[in-house]
Amino acid sequence: MSMELYYWPGLPGRGEYVRLVLVAIDAPWRDMARLAERQGGGMDGLLRVLGDEREPFAPFACPVLKDGDLLIAQTPLICAYLGETYGLAPADEAERLFARQIALTTADLVNEAHDVHHPLGSWDYYEDQKPEAARRAAGFRDQRIPKFLGWYEQVLTRNPAASGWLVGAGLSYADLGLFQTVLGLRYAFPNHMAGLAGRWPGVEALVDRVAALPRIAAYLDSDRRLAFNQDGIFRHYPELDAPAVPG
Amino acid sequence: MSMELYYWPGLPGRGEYVRLVLVAIDAPWRDMARLAERQGGGMDGLLRVLGDEREPFAPFACPVLKDGDLLIAQTPLICAYLGETYGLAPADEAERLFARQIALTTADLVNEAHDVHHPLGSWDYYEDQKPEAARRAAGFRDQRIPKFLGWYEQVLTRNPAASGWLVGAGLSYADLGLFQTVLGLRYAFPNHMAGLAGRWPGVEALVDRVAALPRIAAYLDSDRRLAFNQDGIFRHYPELDAPAVPG
Repeated sequence: MSMELYYWPGLPGRGEYVRLVLVAIDAPWRDMARLAERQGGGMDGLLRVLGDEREPFAPFACPVLKDGDLLIAQTPLICAYLGETYGLAPADEAERLFARQIALTTADLVNEAHDVHHPLGSWDYYEDQKPEAARRAAGFRDQRIPKFLGWYEQVLTRNPAASGWLVGAGLSYADLGLFQTVLGLRYAFPNHMAGLAGRWPGVEALVDRVAALPRIAAYLDSDRRLAFNQDGIFRHYPELDAPAVPG
Repeated sequence: MSMELYYWPGLPGRGEYVRLVLVAIDAPWRDMARLAERQGGGMDGLLRVLGDEREPFAPFACPVLKDGDLLIAQTPLICAYLGETYGLAPADEAERLFARQIALTTADLVNEAHDVHHPLGSWDYYEDQKPEAARRAAGFRDQRIPKFLGWYEQVLTRNPAASGWLVGAGLSYADLGLFQTVLGLRYAFPNHMAGLAGRWPGVEALVDRVAALPRIAAYLDSDRRLAFNQDGIFRHYPELDAPAVPG
């Protein structure tokens, strides 16, 4: 049976983390909010799932995955569920827990990347919190990005399998999450990230390697892939990026 | 073998979520940063675990749990691991995933509660972001607290087992997380939370019931329990609370 993903249409957002795993495991799946309403999709279908009063496991927020009778929310949980159920996670218990830990750390980084442009809350417009966003962006660029990306680099370097992947010998959902996050950071902070090129070579190699995986490459080339844009988590406001280095 | 918890001493913080589960499963455990350094504790012991260069699964941040050979970080992951391994989680797969989802949602709420007093980043003092904190606090009090607590209430109401617990027929680690979070909100926003008394009766009943569990009650009465304070996630700044309702 086809899996169903429920997420806001028109932006990659947290839904894209789930989409990449669905693509990599080659699951049959439908992106419900992007289907027509007569196919059970659109915003109506999305709101029907979120607001179903007979659903005991109604989620707090999107993305939500429906796999048979299971209804699962929370991005790192959905990704771990898919990875562990459909062969995109390590089998060893310690490695399995570490993959989950990485996905949760990535979710924290994603939250922080969002809060850069909405430090005073997502209920107010960016335009109403620009000076505050500029201040938070400086700390995020100078302290948080190096701390997070340096940690991923360390994880890659210390992986006993020396596979170039974050955990164990093979690709896992944790790698896909890092891939999407690095692309998001490059979109949001092009000057800053260009200035950091070469600093975390393992992370950069992983990103290139994910992009070249046949299923992922085909997906990135398709119209199923949603481009980063100014409605998503990663947004490019030039005033929040570092100045361009004169070249 | 005794489990080891590594977390900053002197504040309940995210470590307290793990401590409550350890207490409820009646595990032998040591709160390492609160032991003397000659016992392998103190800040030295904490930094040794965080900075161990031979550790392939070195975590990004505290809290960290050591259980035999396993080293686990990320609060909701540690709590789920302990609950599922030591009998404080549902057995049914859908319920088990839902308990994890609840714990992740609680972690999101905890992050937002922290960001109330540090909207521009944890790298700056509260005193240097007071007007911004006041603005973020208003949205958190008026929009986010009702959205989150209303969701927990809905989960309790819809639980098919009608047990008064969040998932299934018995207590799980998800309940302990909600308990600690509600206490934290009451500490941080006493006037605002007093004004909301009675609005989510199921949540309030759950909090009372957790506090009365014999192991938890004994722990709360002991000097192992760290009181909320101004170094933690939940901080009481009167200017961020709502005004007291004249009584």
